[in-house]
Amino acid sequence: MSSRSRLLSVVVAALCAVQPVASRAADELLETLAQKGVISMEDYEKLKAQRKTAPTVITDDGFRIATGDGGWSVQVGALQQLDLAAYKDDKIDLADGTEMRRSRLSAAGTFLKDWQYRVEYEFATSSAALTDAYVTYNAYKPVLVTLGQFKPPFGMEALSQDKSATFMERALPFYLVSPVVVRAPGAMLSSSGTNWSAAGGIFGEPIGNAQSGDEGYGAAARMSFAPLFTGSRIVHLGLSGQWRDPTQDNSSNTTGQKFDTVRFRAKPESNILAQRFVDTGELTDVKRYTFAGVEFAAQVDALSLQSEYQQVSVKRGAPANLDFDTWYAQLAYTLTGEARPYRVDRGVFEGIKPAKNFARGAGWGAFEVAARISELDLTDGPVNGGRERNATAAVSWYLNPFLRVSANYVKVLDVKGGAFDGEEPSVWQMRLQIAI
Amino acid sequence: MSSRSRLLSVVVAALCAVQPVASRAADELLETLAQKGVISMEDYEKLKAQRKTAPTVITDDGFRIATGDGGWSVQVGALQQLDLAAYKDDKIDLADGTEMRRSRLSAAGTFLKDWQYRVEYEFATSSAALTDAYVTYNAYKPVLVTLGQFKPPFGMEALSQDKSATFMERALPFYLVSPVVVRAPGAMLSSSGTNWSAAGGIFGEPIGNAQSGDEGYGAAARMSFAPLFTGSRIVHLGLSGQWRDPTQDNSSNTTGQKFDTVRFRAKPESNILAQRFVDTGELTDVKRYTFAGVEFAAQVDALSLQSEYQQVSVKRGAPANLDFDTWYAQLAYTLTGEARPYRVDRGVFEGIKPAKNFARGAGWGAFEVAARISELDLTDGPVNGGRERNATAAVSWYLNPFLRVSANYVKVLDVKGGAFDGEEPSVWQMRLQIAI
Amino acid sequence: MSSRSRLLSVVVAALCAVQPVASRAADELLETLAQKGVISMEDYEKLKAQRKTAPTVITDDGFRIATGDGGWSVQVGALQQLDLAAYKDDKIDLADGTEMRRSRLSAAGTFLKDWQYRVEYEFATSSAALTDAYVTYNAYKPVLVTLGQFKPPFGMEALSQDKSATFMERALPFYLVSPVVVRAPGAMLSSSGTNWSAAGGIFGEPIGNAQSGDEGYGAAARMSFAPLFTGSRIVHLGLSGQWRDPTQDNSSNTTGQKFDTVRFRAKPESNILAQRFVDTGELTDVKRYTFAGVEFAAQVDALSLQSEYQQVSVKRGAPANLDFDTWYAQLAYTLTGEARPYRVDRGVFEGIKPAKNFARGAGWGAFEVAARISELDLTDGPVNGGRERNATAAVSWYLNPFLRVSANYVKVLDVKGGAFDGEEPSVWQMRLQIAI
Repeated sequence: MSSRSRLLSVVVAALCAVQPVASRAADELLETLAQKGVISMEDYEKLKAQRKTAPTVITDDGFRIATGDGGWSVQVGALQQLDLAAYKDDKIDLADGTEMRRSRLSAAGTFLKDWQYRVEYEFATSSAALTDAYVTYNAYKPVLVTLGQFKPPFGMEALSQDKSATFMERALPFYLVSPVVVRAPGAMLSSSGTNWSAAGGIFGEPIGNAQSGDEGYGAAARMSFAPLFTGSRIVHLGLSGQWRDPTQDNSSNTTGQKFDTVRFRAKPESNILAQRFVDTGELTDVKRYTFAGVEFAAQVDALSLQSEYQQVSVKRGAPANLDFDTWYAQLAYTLTGEARPYRVDRGVFEGIKPAKNFARGAGWGAFEVAARISELDLTDGPVNGGRERNATAAVSWYLNPFLRVSANYVKVLDVKGGAFDGEEPSVWQMRLQIAI
Repeated sequence: MSSRSRLLSVVVAALCAVQPVASRAADELLETLAQKGVISMEDYEKLKAQRKTAPTVITDDGFRIATGDGGWSVQVGALQQLDLAAYKDDKIDLADGTEMRRSRLSAAGTFLKDWQYRVEYEFATSSAALTDAYVTYNAYKPVLVTLGQFKPPFGMEALSQDKSATFMERALPFYLVSPVVVRAPGAMLSSSGTNWSAAGGIFGEPIGNAQSGDEGYGAAARMSFAPLFTGSRIVHLGLSGQWRDPTQDNSSNTTGQKFDTVRFRAKPESNILAQRFVDTGELTDVKRYTFAGVEFAAQVDALSLQSEYQQVSVKRGAPANLDFDTWYAQLAYTLTGEARPYRVDRGVFEGIKPAKNFARGAGWGAFEVAARISELDLTDGPVNGGRERNATAAVSWYLNPFLRVSANYVKVLDVKGGAFDGEEPSVWQMRLQIAI
Repeated sequence: MSSRSRLLSVVVAALCAVQPVASRAADELLETLAQKGVISMEDYEKLKAQRKTAPTVITDDGFRIATGDGGWSVQVGALQQLDLAAYKDDKIDLADGTEMRRSRLSAAGTFLKDWQYRVEYEFATSSAALTDAYVTYNAYKPVLVTLGQFKPPFGMEALSQDKSATFMERALPFYLVSPVVVRAPGAMLSSSGTNWSAAGGIFGEPIGNAQSGDEGYGAAARMSFAPLFTGSRIVHLGLSGQWRDPTQDNSSNTTGQKFDTVRFRAKPESNILAQRFVDTGELTDVKRYTFAGVEFAAQVDALSLQSEYQQVSVKRGAPANLDFDTWYAQLAYTLTGEARPYRVDRGVFEGIKPAKNFARGAGWGAFEVAARISELDLTDGPVNGGRERNATAAVSWYLNPFLRVSANYVKVLDVKGGAFDGEEPSVWQMRLQIAI
């Protein structure tokens, strides 16, 4: 066998074998074959075209099937969070128990090269509900256009993936925003550079919210900037704002006072509880409310600090205007040395990916410890919603990128005012997370 | 390298590259290899058998994964319709707002070569619900057997895909049928030829309908015929009939009068509205009701006309028998020249597929304008349900086969009788549709 | 062309063609190539690594996509059971009708080689609900660790797949356990040998069960042993036990008597019926209840016998302790000769797989006849829940492994005591099952 023939055979074998996985490598081999005259240009074009829709599997972040040219892909995903909580009661009896915190099924992918879509449904709620349903057009990168239902750009922790938060429940500031709008139908423009991101959009009322009058709407925007961003060292600054007009309540307009309402309230960073320790009740005659938030985060290798302060101003008709605020600060340290991945294009952290997965005789995964303090003050003027301050400690075991076990201890340090004044229970809670 | 060796290598390379996509081509190459004695017959048989289950991706109508021989395939699909509506009120205040009109997840495919299945769930309703769940056996083509839950064969527009209708909402005739039976469990035989289709089946009560007595059942049949069907020119005629016995209401039999009921009512071709402008109320003592419908459609290239007339006769015990009727006529024109694809095997039109997709620096997709007039008369004898007549104008932008933006203007021309007598609002509504 | 070159080409072609399907064969070919010096060791290693993530399709039990090395896979599955029932009434009028008995969507697969996951949702219930959500770790085979929500190990028929039961509804013993716990969140260890299996775990309260106090919990264990297990002849013995503490009801503690409750009740092996002929009502002041069960099954080729006896003991505070028991025995015979597949690692039978699928001009699938008698006695001490005895005859047509049509006739032989004393209707019911 001539050396050329031998070379050719190797090339052909390599082409066949790599074809489904390494798109670029296979393209180059084809090109080489054509240049060396081994295959005709006609064959080359034909083969190249056909290669484009050959399927490949990518397992970086679950099981994604894609065409060879990357122009199409689809991934069916599942996020399951099974929680267990036990309460050291204070004055009132709190019910220990288990729950599916989140139970989601999703389909996401790429189509026609420039479009990405994602739909996700939540089954842990009393009736199944849509969470995400959007398309993103990325032909004008770095400018992206997103249409559908998704998270308005506000708040670093609110925008982090539900599977990636350091603690089992996000800090109290999230509870200020989440009853109002976690996800909403809207249109958003976003962009990013080497050390910044920006996004802004307009949004309707969250799907499924009941209404008797014209629905509410709003706008949100966020910018993030990383003055230091050198591999393992990061300083992150963030700024976001949001305003919303509430849904109008036609049926209650008879007194002349408009009953357009909004309500802020929070569970003590433990979702199994039915009780919300701070609660403004329905605030009536609301004309508009405005959120503002600032973020600061820093990371040195396995150690990270993250904090946010947020404020909401409620402008009302006859009754007094109101201001509530909330903040948290958290410290996290990965015992096994992994840094929290920073997504500079979105200005958020993602979940830890273990350097070594847990596997028989191989590794133990990653371990992380974290501590947090958070506060939410829902008392202002005539509204005695209460002020709550919590301290939380957390241990997380990341067996691999898809499996995580968390244990959290939440101590309600203080509830001042409101219906649960002086209630200071402790919470022990654990979570098994499957995110594949 | 000998020319034969070179040829062989090309053939082998081609075989490898085309294998996952072009089943037939690869089979032919294999055969050539065997005939030329390059590979033994034994190898040939082995290779051929193994090729059968190699995966391929087909992206004609979404992301379908199939085996090389086409005997197996699966596609996970999502249909999302996000609506926005604003009402120019007439007498009563109508609530503007947004909604997910449809939010569906589906799995469909082929198994064991001759069987096709489809299951689809709807999440836009208050609790998630099954829409389609059926298998079709096609080994006796052109005769197909379909079993499970699916749409009974009645009405051209009713049978068109939910993503393919020209207007955001189907015309008023659909509202005559849809409260009664859009989909139902049943068994159907269908067939088709070069210019005709026919289908008939028996059906139980739609799944999920509450009942206190024996459930209703019925039968439906439809025929379509295209006297002219030459590429861009189509004349379509259709005829369908359906009868149903309503579910018995055991709990109300005490007066001797049977309370088996049916109810017809319609929203003004805008789904976000809570109000139904025409409504018969619950018609009692129903023995049987019968639908009949005729269809006429014609297409010359980008211009199409479509119209249907339907009638329902309600046979009752003691109270008077009733007759209601309804019709619509629509004109559609694709500015970019695409014709509406006609599925002669099912006697329906499908959605526009842009000749050129919207893409940066490439094309703008397809644009379509359409106008429609429709009427539904639910007043007969003692029943004053009201008569409604609407006019609608529509613009649709098909960015690509999977993305569509629609804007519709509905003018309620006249509501005569019923609880909403004289109500004549206008509706502005838009839709973002993701169907992948 | 030299014979070596020819051999090589064949090898390469074979490699390409088999690559997506026959992992082992392709690996051996690659090795041969390397050993014969056709490709360098470096190339060999590279090709081998790349082959690992090339996709394959496996259609043994549906449509599964896997990577070449089997380390990753995913399957989207659907289980649809469409039922039709007609009742020959006795004293009270029973409502004939149709229903989706089960309508499920699932995603399951393998990740990181040693982990398997499965999530499944049920849409036939009034609101969509999670059924399975678990991961299994199998690196320590034959010992498996399972975490998440799944079926506690108790009872042979209860643990058989929902699609595989011989009759449309499981026998009355299943109704003793199922209202309490079909699936629950928990952790389980299981193992198996050549003729035995064992499993044990701890479990919380089923997800979604309402609660006002601390949630219940329990433990379950089961062992199976096949003293005879030689191909077509099987003798199976099984033993299982389960205890549970009920959820505490804080809101009703005022009388000093604890109102922690449990309730046992059963439909007459026909699910469309609303009526439950035997029913203990809510049993109050329950401290703990304990299930025990024994199993005996035997199979000679196409003939099989299966029976179980189960007992529950309810330990209460002030009121009397209670004991209820239940049993069934069934005989099944496959007319077409197939034996029920026995899964020795789980100690259960699976559904019939036809030797010849139903296909035009090829075969008719498999036919099975079966008979069963079952009893459930819910009367003890002060509790007059009633005792029911049923006889059932069944015919099943397995068209292929994915499609099944069943017809069952259930005769309620006797209901003694309880609210339905003396009620003895007959049930005719049919099912279309699509499980793909």
